Amino acid sequence: MTSTAASADLISRHHDALEQALAAIRKRSYFSAFPESPSPRVYGEHAAGEGQAAFDGLLGRPFPLETAGADGSVAQERSPYGPELGVAYPRVTTDGLDELLGAARRGMGQWRDAGPALRVAVCQEVLARLHARIFELAHAVQHTSGQAFVMAFQAGGAHALDRALEALAYAYDEMTRHPASALWEKPGRGEPVRMEKTFTVVPRGVGLVVGCHTFPTWNSWPGLFASLACGNPVVVKPHPGAVLPLALTVQVARAVLTETGFDADLVSLAAEAEGEGLAADLALRPEVRLVDFTGSNAFGEWLEQHATQAVVFAEKAGVNAVVLDSTDDFAGMCANLAFSFALYTGQMCTAPQNVFVPDAGITTDQGVKRPEEVAAGIGAALDRLLGDDARAVEVLGAVVGDAVLSRLDAAPERGRVLVASRAVTHPSWPDARVRTPLLLGLSVGDDQIYAAECFGPVAYLVTTGSTAESLQTFVRTALDFGAMTASVYSTDPGVLSDARAAALDAGVALSENLTGPVFVNQSAAFSDFHGTGANPAATASFTDGAFVAPRFRTVQSRRHC
Amino acid sequence: MTSTAASADLISRHHDALEQALAAIRKRSYFSAFPESPSPRVYGEHAAGEGQAAFDGLLGRPFPLETAGADGSVAQERSPYGPELGVAYPRVTTDGLDELLGAARRGMGQWRDAGPALRVAVCQEVLARLHARIFELAHAVQHTSGQAFVMAFQAGGAHALDRALEALAYAYDEMTRHPASALWEKPGRGEPVRMEKTFTVVPRGVGLVVGCHTFPTWNSWPGLFASLACGNPVVVKPHPGAVLPLALTVQVARAVLTETGFDADLVSLAAEAEGEGLAADLALRPEVRLVDFTGSNAFGEWLEQHATQAVVFAEKAGVNAVVLDSTDDFAGMCANLAFSFALYTGQMCTAPQNVFVPDAGITTDQGVKRPEEVAAGIGAALDRLLGDDARAVEVLGAVVGDAVLSRLDAAPERGRVLVASRAVTHPSWPDARVRTPLLLGLSVGDDQIYAAECFGPVAYLVTTGSTAESLQTFVRTALDFGAMTASVYSTDPGVLSDARAAALDAGVALSENLTGPVFVNQSAAFSDFHGTGANPAATASFTDGAFVAPRFRTVQSRRHC
Repeated sequence: MTSTAASADLISRHHDALEQALAAIRKRSYFSAFPESPSPRVYGEHAAGEGQAAFDGLLGRPFPLETAGADGSVAQERSPYGPELGVAYPRVTTDGLDELLGAARRGMGQWRDAGPALRVAVCQEVLARLHARIFELAHAVQHTSGQAFVMAFQAGGAHALDRALEALAYAYDEMTRHPASALWEKPGRGEPVRMEKTFTVVPRGVGLVVGCHTFPTWNSWPGLFASLACGNPVVVKPHPGAVLPLALTVQVARAVLTETGFDADLVSLAAEAEGEGLAADLALRPEVRLVDFTGSNAFGEWLEQHATQAVVFAEKAGVNAVVLDSTDDFAGMCANLAFSFALYTGQMCTAPQNVFVPDAGITTDQGVKRPEEVAAGIGAALDRLLGDDARAVEVLGAVVGDAVLSRLDAAPERGRVLVASRAVTHPSWPDARVRTPLLLGLSVGDDQIYAAECFGPVAYLVTTGSTAESLQTFVRTALDFGAMTASVYSTDPGVLSDARAAALDAGVALSENLTGPVFVNQSAAFSDFHGTGANPAATASFTDGAFVAPRFRTVQSRRHC
Repeated sequence: MTSTAASADLISRHHDALEQALAAIRKRSYFSAFPESPSPRVYGEHAAGEGQAAFDGLLGRPFPLETAGADGSVAQERSPYGPELGVAYPRVTTDGLDELLGAARRGMGQWRDAGPALRVAVCQEVLARLHARIFELAHAVQHTSGQAFVMAFQAGGAHALDRALEALAYAYDEMTRHPASALWEKPGRGEPVRMEKTFTVVPRGVGLVVGCHTFPTWNSWPGLFASLACGNPVVVKPHPGAVLPLALTVQVARAVLTETGFDADLVSLAAEAEGEGLAADLALRPEVRLVDFTGSNAFGEWLEQHATQAVVFAEKAGVNAVVLDSTDDFAGMCANLAFSFALYTGQMCTAPQNVFVPDAGITTDQGVKRPEEVAAGIGAALDRLLGDDARAVEVLGAVVGDAVLSRLDAAPERGRVLVASRAVTHPSWPDARVRTPLLLGLSVGDDQIYAAECFGPVAYLVTTGSTAESLQTFVRTALDFGAMTASVYSTDPGVLSDARAAALDAGVALSENLTGPVFVNQSAAFSDFHGTGANPAATASFTDGAFVAPRFRTVQSRRHC
C-alpha cells in the first residue's frame, strides 16, 4: 500500500464489518451484511435505473479489462432471455499461460508482506465496490445464468456478497489464529532458554477459480476471496456462457488493488471460447496450488485425480432427496415443494430431485394421501404458483442452455408423467425459453434412473415400501452419487430422529418439515453450511475452517533473545 | 461409553490438561505436559527398572494384539544395536483388507455420536496410559529406530506425547469452533422466520497412518490422534523395522476404547513383512479418506498422485540448508552445528545437510574464517563432542539401516573429505553400527550432489561467491527439492532480514544464530511448527488448523421452531 496511514485507514474503515462477520461465523445464527431487497427504500430511487444503464452500456463492445498473456478476444455470451450480449473479453489460450501465471505471481511477495489484516481489508473494499454496482451485477447474472432479476439480485448479488464476506471472516480468523510472534521460555536448571519466534502467513501459489454457468458469483466468490485474502494470486476462468459477472468482479478487484498500491495482476480473468479446455490446462500448471471449481461430476473428478499439485475444492452434482412420511400441513408441504422445484427452473445444485413416498401413502391433516394424490397436490401447487405467466417467469427465470432442454424433452419416456412440463411465454423476452417442472412417477426399483442427476426442471416421485426404505435409499444414493441437500416431512419424532441419523450417515444437510417461506434449495450465508464434503457431491463446504486453512501456510523464524 | 456419568468423569478428569493445551496452541509459547527428563526424581525410582523389565518381557514372543483380517504373523525387527527383537505381530495382507476395513468402520457411528469432547477425552486417556509406559516405549523406540535411550525417551516419548496432545487440542478447537446448535431468526415484515439448526461433526472415513523407521511415534501420533479424535477409525501401518512402538500404541488405544465402551477395532495395527507394499494397497482403498505418511519422497509423491480419494498429509525428505555469513561466537556456532550433524547420526528430516559459506570466508570473533577453517572448526567441535566413545553413542545412537551405511560409504568420492566419518564401538552393544558425521567439501556448481538428500551422517560444506548467492541457492534447492529446516548465522541485521525473506520465499522454518542449547533439528511442540507444507518436503505442518480441519465435516439439520 502506498502509505501506512492509508493502510490503517482502510483496515479501520472495514473493521466493524469484519468484527460482525467474525461474530456471526462463531454463532452461525442469522447475519447479513448486504441487504437482499432491491427496493428503492433500501438502495435509493436511482440505483435501479443507474444499474440498468450501466449494464446496457457494457453490451456490444469490448469489456474494459486487460489480461496478461491474452491474445485477441472472445465474445460468446447469449442471454437465456434471448439477446446476444456481444461483450468481448481478452482471450486466453494455452500459449499465454506462461505470461498469465508469471504476471499473477509478480505481486505475490508484496501481497504476502501486506499481512492478513490489510489483505482482508482490501478484499472487503472490493466487496463494497461490488455492492455499489449490485444492480449492474444483477443484470449481468440474470442475462448469463437466466435467473429472474430479483433472484439474480439476491443470490447473485447480496447473498453472494454475504458468502464472500463469510469466506473473508474465516480466512482472517484462521490467519490470525496464531500470534505474529511469541516468546518461548523453557525453564531449566539455570536461566531459562529464551527464544523469540516470528510466524508469518505465506500463500500457497496461484489460486484457480473455475466458474459455472448458473451461479457465476455465488459459487465463485467464496473461493476467490478466500484464496486472495490468504495471499494467493487468483486466476478466474469463467464459464464461457457466464463471463460478465466475473469480468465485473475482476475489474473491480484490479481497480482496488491498483488504488491500494498492489499489482493488479493478482486477480485476472482468463476467458476462453466454448470447448477450448482452458480450465484443464490451467489446473495442471505447477504454479496453480488451489483450485475452486463448480460444475460437472466428470470434470470435478478429473480435477481431483489429476490436479494433484493443488488442493481442489470442488462442488459437483448430486441427487437430492425428499423423504415424505407424514405431515400436518399437506397444502404447505406441496406449496413448499412446488416452489423448490420451480425456483430457477430447478437449475440449482440444491434443488430436490427424488421425492420418496411409501406405496401406502402418507398420513396428513387431509387424511392419508396416496402417491398419486401427493403428485396431484404438488401439481395443484405448481399450477397456483405458475399459472400466471407474468408471475411464473419471476420464479422460473429462463432455461440456461440447450442441455437442460434436451434432458427435459427426453425425460417423459423414463417414467409416468404425473405433472407435465409446459412452455411459458415470457411477457418481456419473447425469445426466452421458460419451462415449468416435470414430475415423473418411478418406483424404488428404477434406481438406474433416479440415481443419476437430471439437472433442470425434472423431479421424480419414487414409491417405496416404507419410510425406512425411503431413508435407506436416500443414504445409498447420496453416498454413491452425492447430494447437496435432503428434506424430510414427518410428524413422528422417531422418523425425524431416523432421518437425522440417515443424513449424518449420508453426509447431507437436512431440512425438516419446510412448509413456510424457507426452501430446501436455499442456504443462508453465515448460518447454513452449503455442501458438506462428506459425500461425492462436493469436497468442501461454504464456509468452514477446512475451506480456508489449506489456502496458506505458516513459516516461522526463531532466534535467542 | 457405558454410562453418561463415566463419560462426564473422563471428560472432567482431562479437562484441565485440555484447557492448558488449548491455551498453549493459541500462544505458541513454551508448553509441555509430559516431563522430558527420565530422572527418578521426576518419574520415581522404580519407573526405569519397571520399564526395562516390561520391554524385556515383550521380546521373543507374539505381541498380545489382535487385528481383524490378519493371517499368521510377522516378526522381522532387528535392533540397530544388534539383537533381533523376535516380536511377532498379526500379519495383514491384501486379502485381509475387506475384513480389516470393515471392522474399522463398524464402530464409527457410535464413535461419531460420542461427540468431540468425549472422543478427545478418550484420546487423552490413551496418552495418559502411554505416558505411564514411557520407559517401556523409550526402549521400544531405541531398539527400532536406533536412537540413544535418552533421545528415545524424549523425542519418542515425552515430546511425541506433547505433539499428540497438541494435535488433540487443535482437533478439539476446530470441532468446537461452531456451536452444536443455533437459533436462526431472520427479520421480516411480520414475525421473524425462525429456525433451529443442529451442527454435527462427522468423520471422513478410515484414517491410514504410515509410520517411519526413525521416528515411529513422534511422526505418527499427531495424525493418528487427530484422525481418531475427529471420529475416524485409524489403521496404523508401521514400518516393518519399527513396529513395536506403534504396536504398544495400538494396544493401549484398543484397551481404552474397550474400557470406555467403544469398538476396539477403531484402532488397528496392520503389520506386514518388508517389501510387501501394504501401505499402497491400503492407501487406494475407497474406505480410506485420510492418509498420514512419513517417509520417502518417492512414496509420498506416489500417494499424493494416486490416493486422490483421500487427503494426504505427507512428510517427505528435503535438503536442509545452513547459511554462514558471520558470527560473534565461532566456537558456539561450530559446537552447535556439530551437535546438529551428530544427533542421532543425522538421521533426522530436520538435520542440516548443506552448509553454504562464501569462498572469501566469514567474519567471526576469531577473525575471518575461510571455508577450510570453518570445516576445521566444525571438525574440532565434532571431536570434542564425540571423542569419547561412551559419550559419543549417547549422541549418535545407532545407524538405523543398511541404506544409511551404503550412502555414507559411497559419499567420500563425491567431494573433498573435510571431516572423515569414523566407526565408534558401542561399549554396551558391540553389534551396534555407530558412525560419526562426514563433512564433504563442494562448491556451488555441484548442485547435482547437494540438491539431493543424503539421509544420514553426511553434510556438505558448499562454497559460494557470496552470502547473497548462498541465500539464493538455499531458496532454489528448497523450492525444487524441499526443506524441513534452515539456519543462518550472521551478525548483520540486513543479512538476517534477507534470510528471513528468503525463508518465506522458500517456505522453510528458519533458525537464526543458534550457538547455545537449541538446535536446528529440534522442533518444540506447542510452539514450533514442524514442516510448513509450503515446499515439496511436506504437505502439512505439525500442528495447525490445516492439519486437522480436513479430518471431519459438519453436517447440519434445520427445522422451524
